[in-house]
Amino acid sequence: MPTSTAILTPDQLLSHWQGHRRVTRRVIEAFPDEPFTQFAVGGMRPALGLATEIVQMAEPTLEGVISNTWEQRDPRPAPTTKAAVLARWDEVTALLDRRWSEIPDARFQERELAFGQWDMRMVDLLLYVIDNEIHHRGQLMTYLRALGVEPPAFYDRS
Amino acid sequence: MPTSTAILTPDQLLSHWQGHRRVTRRVIEAFPDEPFTQFAVGGMRPALGLATEIVQMAEPTLEGVISNTWEQRDPRPAPTTKAAVLARWDEVTALLDRRWSEIPDARFQERELAFGQWDMRMVDLLLYVIDNEIHHRGQLMTYLRALGVEPPAFYDRS
Repeated sequence: MPTSTAILTPDQLLSHWQGHRRVTRRVIEAFPDEPFTQFAVGGMRPALGLATEIVQMAEPTLEGVISNTWEQRDPRPAPTTKAAVLARWDEVTALLDRRWSEIPDARFQERELAFGQWDMRMVDLLLYVIDNEIHHRGQLMTYLRALGVEPPAFYDRS
Repeated sequence: MPTSTAILTPDQLLSHWQGHRRVTRRVIEAFPDEPFTQFAVGGMRPALGLATEIVQMAEPTLEGVISNTWEQRDPRPAPTTKAAVLARWDEVTALLDRRWSEIPDARFQERELAFGQWDMRMVDLLLYVIDNEIHHRGQLMTYLRALGVEPPAFYDRS
Protein backbone atom coordinates (compact mmCIF):
# COMPACT_ATOMS: atom_id res chain seq x y z
CA MET A 1 0.00 0.00 0.00
CA PRO A 2 1.49 3.38 -0.97
CA THR A 3 2.19 5.63 1.99
CA SER A 4 3.97 8.46 0.21
CA THR A 5 2.72 12.03 -0.11
CA ALA A 6 -0.99 12.04 -0.85
CA ILE A 7 -1.76 13.60 -4.22
CA LEU A 8 -5.51 13.50 -3.47
CA THR A 9 -7.24 13.17 -0.12
CA PRO A 10 -10.56 11.41 0.58
CA ASP A 11 -12.21 14.77 1.33
CA GLN A 12 -10.98 16.17 -1.98
CA LEU A 13 -12.39 13.19 -3.88
CA LEU A 14 -15.79 13.73 -2.24
CA SER A 15 -15.67 17.46 -3.07
CA HIS A 16 -14.75 16.56 -6.65
CA TRP A 17 -17.77 14.27 -6.90
CA GLN A 18 -20.21 16.63 -5.21
CA GLY A 19 -19.00 19.49 -7.43
CA HIS A 20 -19.80 17.43 -10.52
CA ARG A 21 -23.11 16.39 -8.98
CA ARG A 22 -24.10 20.06 -8.56
CA VAL A 23 -23.48 20.63 -12.27
CA THR A 24 -25.44 17.51 -13.22
CA ARG A 25 -28.35 18.55 -11.01
CA ARG A 26 -28.51 21.89 -12.84
CA VAL A 27 -28.42 20.08 -16.19
CA ILE A 28 -31.39 17.91 -15.14
CA GLU A 29 -33.25 20.98 -13.87
CA ALA A 30 -32.70 22.73 -17.22
CA PHE A 31 -34.85 20.21 -19.10
CA PRO A 32 -38.46 21.04 -19.82
CA ASP A 33 -40.63 18.33 -18.20
CA GLU A 34 -41.93 16.58 -21.28
CA PRO A 35 -38.67 16.32 -23.26
CA PHE A 36 -37.01 15.05 -20.07
CA THR A 37 -38.96 11.81 -20.32
CA GLN A 38 -39.40 11.63 -24.10
CA PHE A 39 -36.71 13.40 -26.12
CA ALA A 40 -33.49 11.71 -27.25
CA VAL A 41 -30.90 11.87 -30.05
CA GLY A 42 -29.96 8.97 -32.31
CA GLY A 43 -32.02 6.26 -30.61
CA MET A 44 -30.43 6.81 -27.21
CA ARG A 45 -32.34 6.81 -23.92
CA PRO A 46 -34.25 9.96 -22.94
CA ALA A 47 -32.78 12.12 -20.18
CA LEU A 48 -34.90 10.28 -17.61
CA GLY A 49 -33.06 7.02 -18.35
CA LEU A 50 -29.59 8.56 -18.25
CA ALA A 51 -30.29 10.60 -15.10
CA THR A 52 -31.82 7.60 -13.38
CA GLU A 53 -28.74 5.50 -14.14
CA ILE A 54 -26.54 8.21 -12.62
CA VAL A 55 -28.60 8.67 -9.47
CA GLN A 56 -29.02 4.93 -8.91
CA MET A 57 -25.29 4.10 -9.11
CA ALA A 58 -24.06 6.30 -6.29
CA GLU A 59 -25.65 4.69 -3.24
CA PRO A 60 -24.93 1.00 -4.02
CA THR A 61 -21.35 1.93 -4.91
CA LEU A 62 -20.78 3.82 -1.67
CA GLU A 63 -22.40 0.98 0.28
CA GLY A 64 -20.12 -1.58 -1.40
CA VAL A 65 -17.01 0.48 -0.78
CA ILE A 66 -17.94 0.88 2.89
CA SER A 67 -19.29 -2.60 3.65
CA ASN A 68 -17.95 -4.95 0.89
CA THR A 69 -21.59 -5.80 0.11
CA TRP A 70 -22.54 -5.31 -3.51
CA GLU A 71 -26.22 -4.93 -4.26
CA GLN A 72 -26.79 -4.67 -7.98
CA ARG A 73 -28.82 -1.51 -7.70
CA ASP A 74 -30.83 0.86 -5.64
CA PRO A 75 -33.77 -1.30 -4.44
CA ARG A 76 -36.30 1.54 -4.53
CA PRO A 77 -38.56 1.97 -7.56
CA ALA A 78 -36.94 4.01 -10.34
CA PRO A 79 -38.11 7.63 -10.51
CA THR A 80 -40.43 8.40 -13.44
CA THR A 81 -40.43 12.21 -13.48
CA LYS A 82 -37.90 15.00 -13.36
CA ALA A 83 -39.17 16.05 -9.91
CA ALA A 84 -38.72 12.50 -8.61
CA VAL A 85 -35.17 12.31 -10.02
CA LEU A 86 -34.27 15.59 -8.33
CA ALA A 87 -35.76 14.47 -5.01
CA ARG A 88 -33.72 11.25 -5.16
CA TRP A 89 -30.70 13.32 -6.19
CA ASP A 90 -30.88 15.38 -3.02
CA GLU A 91 -31.22 12.29 -0.84
CA VAL A 92 -28.05 10.88 -2.41
CA THR A 93 -26.21 14.19 -1.95
CA ALA A 94 -26.97 14.09 1.78
CA LEU A 95 -26.10 10.39 2.01
CA LEU A 96 -22.68 10.89 0.42
CA ASP A 97 -21.87 13.73 2.80
CA ARG A 98 -23.09 11.75 5.79
CA ARG A 99 -21.39 8.41 5.10
CA TRP A 100 -18.22 9.25 3.15
CA SER A 101 -16.04 9.32 6.26
CA GLU A 102 -16.95 5.68 6.92
CA ILE A 103 -14.51 4.71 4.15
CA PRO A 104 -11.16 3.93 5.81
CA ASP A 105 -8.22 5.61 4.03
CA ALA A 106 -6.63 2.24 3.22
CA ARG A 107 -9.84 1.04 1.55
CA PHE A 108 -9.36 3.25 -1.53
CA GLN A 109 -6.41 1.15 -2.70
CA GLU A 110 -8.07 -2.21 -2.02
CA ARG A 111 -8.91 -4.19 -5.11
CA GLU A 112 -12.13 -6.20 -5.17
CA LEU A 113 -14.72 -7.66 -7.55
CA ALA A 114 -17.42 -4.99 -7.31
CA PHE A 115 -20.98 -5.94 -8.22
CA GLY A 116 -19.66 -9.38 -9.30
CA GLN A 117 -18.31 -7.72 -12.42
CA TRP A 118 -15.72 -4.97 -11.93
CA ASP A 119 -12.35 -6.08 -10.58
CA MET A 120 -10.78 -2.81 -9.60
CA ARG A 121 -9.37 -0.66 -6.82
CA MET A 122 -12.05 1.14 -4.85
CA VAL A 123 -10.65 4.55 -5.87
CA ASP A 124 -10.91 3.53 -9.53
CA LEU A 125 -14.48 2.32 -8.97
CA LEU A 126 -15.43 5.67 -7.45
CA LEU A 127 -13.72 7.52 -10.31
CA TYR A 128 -15.60 5.25 -12.72
CA VAL A 129 -18.94 6.26 -11.24
CA ILE A 130 -17.99 9.96 -11.35
CA ASP A 131 -16.72 9.63 -14.94
CA ASN A 132 -19.86 7.78 -15.99
CA GLU A 133 -21.83 10.75 -14.67
CA ILE A 134 -19.68 13.24 -16.62
CA HIS A 135 -20.05 11.07 -19.73
CA HIS A 136 -23.83 10.88 -19.58
CA ARG A 137 -24.05 14.55 -18.61
CA GLY A 138 -22.17 15.40 -21.82
CA GLN A 139 -24.90 13.52 -23.66
CA LEU A 140 -27.61 15.34 -21.66
CA MET A 141 -26.04 18.71 -22.51
CA THR A 142 -26.15 17.71 -26.20
CA TYR A 143 -29.86 16.94 -25.80
CA LEU A 144 -30.35 20.42 -24.28
CA ARG A 145 -28.57 22.04 -27.24
CA ALA A 146 -30.72 20.02 -29.64
CA LEU A 147 -33.77 21.34 -27.74
CA GLY A 148 -32.51 24.92 -28.05
CA VAL A 149 -31.72 25.21 -24.33
CA GLU A 150 -28.38 26.70 -23.21
CA PRO A 151 -26.80 24.13 -20.83
CA PRO A 152 -25.31 25.14 -17.44
CA ALA A 153 -21.55 25.74 -17.53
CA PHE A 154 -19.35 22.64 -17.31
CA TYR A 155 -16.67 24.51 -15.36
CA ASP A 156 -18.90 25.97 -12.64
CA ARG A 157 -18.92 23.43 -9.82
CA SER A 158 -20.38 25.77 -7.19
CA MET B 1 0.44 19.05 2.84
CA PRO B 2 -1.27 15.70 3.53
CA THR B 3 1.13 12.85 4.16
CA SER B 4 -1.35 10.15 5.11
CA THR B 5 -2.06 6.97 3.15
CA ALA B 6 -2.21 7.70 -0.55
CA ILE B 7 -5.63 6.99 -2.01
CA LEU B 8 -4.32 7.57 -5.54
CA THR B 9 -0.73 7.53 -6.77
CA PRO B 10 0.76 9.65 -9.57
CA ASP B 11 1.18 6.53 -11.74
CA GLN B 12 -2.47 5.63 -11.22
CA LEU B 13 -3.60 9.11 -12.23
CA LEU B 14 -1.57 8.85 -15.45
CA SER B 15 -3.03 5.39 -16.15
CA HIS B 16 -6.50 6.79 -15.52
CA TRP B 17 -5.90 9.56 -18.04
CA GLN B 18 -4.27 7.37 -20.67
CA GLY B 19 -7.10 4.84 -20.33
CA HIS B 20 -9.63 7.56 -21.06
CA ARG B 21 -7.45 8.83 -23.90
CA ARG B 22 -7.50 5.38 -25.53
CA VAL B 23 -11.32 5.45 -25.48
CA THR B 24 -11.42 8.98 -26.90
CA ARG B 25 -9.00 8.04 -29.67
CA ARG B 26 -11.31 5.19 -30.69
CA VAL B 27 -14.29 7.58 -30.66
CA ILE B 28 -12.43 9.97 -32.99
CA GLU B 29 -11.45 7.07 -35.25
CA ALA B 30 -15.07 5.94 -35.46
CA PHE B 31 -16.13 9.12 -37.28
CA PRO B 32 -16.41 9.06 -41.05
CA ASP B 33 -14.02 11.73 -42.43
CA GLU B 34 -16.54 14.23 -43.73
CA PRO B 35 -18.93 14.34 -40.75
CA PHE B 36 -15.87 14.65 -38.49
CA THR B 37 -15.26 18.16 -39.79
CA GLN B 38 -18.83 19.15 -40.64
CA PHE B 39 -21.52 17.39 -38.61
CA ALA B 40 -22.84 18.69 -35.29
CA VAL B 41 -25.97 18.63 -33.14
CA GLY B 42 -27.85 21.71 -31.93
CA GLY B 43 -25.41 24.35 -33.19
CA MET B 44 -22.42 22.89 -31.35
CA ARG B 45 -18.92 22.58 -32.81
CA PRO B 46 -18.22 19.66 -35.15
CA ALA B 47 -16.13 16.78 -33.82
CA LEU B 48 -12.99 18.41 -35.21
CA GLY B 49 -13.44 21.39 -32.88
CA LEU B 50 -14.13 19.30 -29.79
CA ALA B 51 -11.32 16.83 -30.49
CA THR B 52 -8.87 19.66 -31.18
CA GLU B 53 -9.75 21.31 -27.87
CA ILE B 54 -9.08 18.04 -26.08
CA VAL B 55 -5.78 17.31 -27.78
CA GLN B 56 -4.52 20.89 -27.39
CA MET B 57 -5.16 21.09 -23.63
CA ALA B 58 -2.97 18.21 -22.53
CA GLU B 59 0.52 19.44 -23.40
CA PRO B 60 0.28 23.04 -22.07
CA THR B 61 -1.30 21.70 -18.88
CA LEU B 62 1.45 19.14 -18.30
CA GLU B 63 4.08 21.78 -19.09
CA GLY B 64 2.52 24.20 -16.58
CA VAL B 65 2.29 21.56 -13.87
CA ILE B 66 5.94 20.61 -14.41
CA SER B 67 7.48 24.05 -14.95
CA ASN B 68 4.99 26.64 -13.52
CA THR B 69 4.95 28.23 -17.00
CA TRP B 70 1.48 28.64 -18.44
CA GLU B 71 1.25 29.04 -22.19
CA GLN B 72 -2.33 29.60 -23.22
CA ARG B 73 -2.30 26.83 -25.78
CA ASP B 74 -0.36 24.46 -27.96
CA PRO B 75 1.63 26.81 -30.25
CA ARG B 76 1.45 24.53 -33.28
CA PRO B 77 -1.23 25.09 -35.95
CA ALA B 78 -4.53 23.40 -35.10
CA PRO B 79 -5.14 20.14 -36.97
CA THR B 80 -7.76 20.35 -39.72
CA THR B 81 -8.44 16.68 -40.47
CA LYS B 82 -9.19 13.53 -38.54
CA ALA B 83 -5.82 12.07 -39.55
CA ALA B 84 -4.02 15.15 -38.27
CA VAL B 85 -5.91 15.03 -34.95
CA LEU B 86 -4.95 11.37 -34.52
CA ALA B 87 -1.30 12.04 -35.34
CA ARG B 88 -1.23 14.85 -32.75
CA TRP B 89 -3.04 12.54 -30.34
CA ASP B 90 -0.28 9.96 -30.53
CA GLU B 91 2.43 12.57 -30.00
CA VAL B 92 0.64 13.71 -26.83
CA THR B 93 0.26 10.12 -25.64
CA ALA B 94 4.01 9.61 -25.90
CA LEU B 95 4.72 12.99 -24.30
CA LEU B 96 2.56 12.24 -21.26
CA ASP B 97 4.28 8.89 -20.75
CA ARG B 98 7.72 10.43 -21.18
CA ARG B 99 7.35 13.51 -18.98
CA TRP B 100 4.80 12.54 -16.29
CA SER B 101 7.48 11.47 -13.80
CA GLU B 102 8.90 15.02 -13.89
CA ILE B 103 5.98 16.08 -11.68
CA PRO B 104 7.23 15.94 -8.06
CA ASP B 105 4.74 14.18 -5.74
CA ALA B 106 4.30 17.33 -3.65
CA ARG B 107 3.36 19.35 -6.72
CA PHE B 108 -0.09 17.74 -7.05
CA GLN B 109 -1.33 19.50 -3.92
CA GLU B 110 0.16 22.89 -4.79
CA ARG B 111 -2.38 25.55 -5.61
CA GLU B 112 -1.60 28.05 -8.33
CA LEU B 113 -3.27 30.36 -10.87
CA ALA B 114 -3.07 28.19 -13.98
CA PHE B 115 -3.25 29.89 -17.37
CA GLY B 116 -3.91 33.19 -15.56
CA GLN B 117 -7.44 31.98 -14.93
CA TRP B 118 -7.83 28.78 -12.90
CA ASP B 119 -6.86 29.03 -9.24
CA MET B 120 -6.68 25.40 -8.23
CA ARG B 121 -4.57 22.55 -6.94
CA MET B 122 -2.55 20.88 -9.68
CA VAL B 123 -4.34 17.55 -9.08
CA ASP B 124 -7.68 19.30 -9.59
CA LEU B 125 -6.39 20.96 -12.75
CA LEU B 126 -5.32 17.59 -14.15
CA LEU B 127 -8.68 16.07 -13.20
CA TYR B 128 -10.36 19.06 -14.86
CA VAL B 129 -8.58 18.35 -18.14
CA ILE B 130 -9.45 14.65 -17.93
CA ASP B 131 -13.09 15.45 -17.07
CA ASN B 132 -13.31 17.97 -19.90
CA GLU B 133 -12.23 15.18 -22.25
CA ILE B 134 -14.88 12.79 -20.86
CA HIS B 135 -17.48 15.56 -21.17
CA HIS B 136 -16.73 16.35 -24.80
CA ARG B 137 -16.37 12.65 -25.61
CA GLY B 138 -19.93 12.13 -24.35
CA GLN B 139 -20.98 14.78 -26.85
CA LEU B 140 -18.93 13.09 -29.59
CA MET B 141 -20.57 9.74 -28.83
CA THR B 142 -23.95 11.44 -29.20
CA TYR B 143 -22.88 12.74 -32.60
CA LEU B 144 -21.90 9.18 -33.58
CA ARG B 145 -25.33 7.88 -32.53
CA ALA B 146 -27.01 10.65 -34.51
CA LEU B 147 -24.89 9.53 -37.50
CA GLY B 148 -26.01 5.93 -37.01
CA VAL B 149 -22.55 4.77 -35.86
CA GLU B 150 -22.23 2.55 -32.74
CA PRO B 151 -19.74 4.30 -30.43
CA PRO B 152 -16.83 2.41 -28.78
CA ALA B 153 -17.60 1.21 -25.24
CA PHE B 154 -17.20 3.79 -22.46
CA TYR B 155 -16.05 1.15 -19.99
CA ASP B 156 -13.30 -0.42 -22.11
CA ARG B 157 -10.11 1.49 -21.28
CA SER B 158 -7.73 -1.05 -22.85
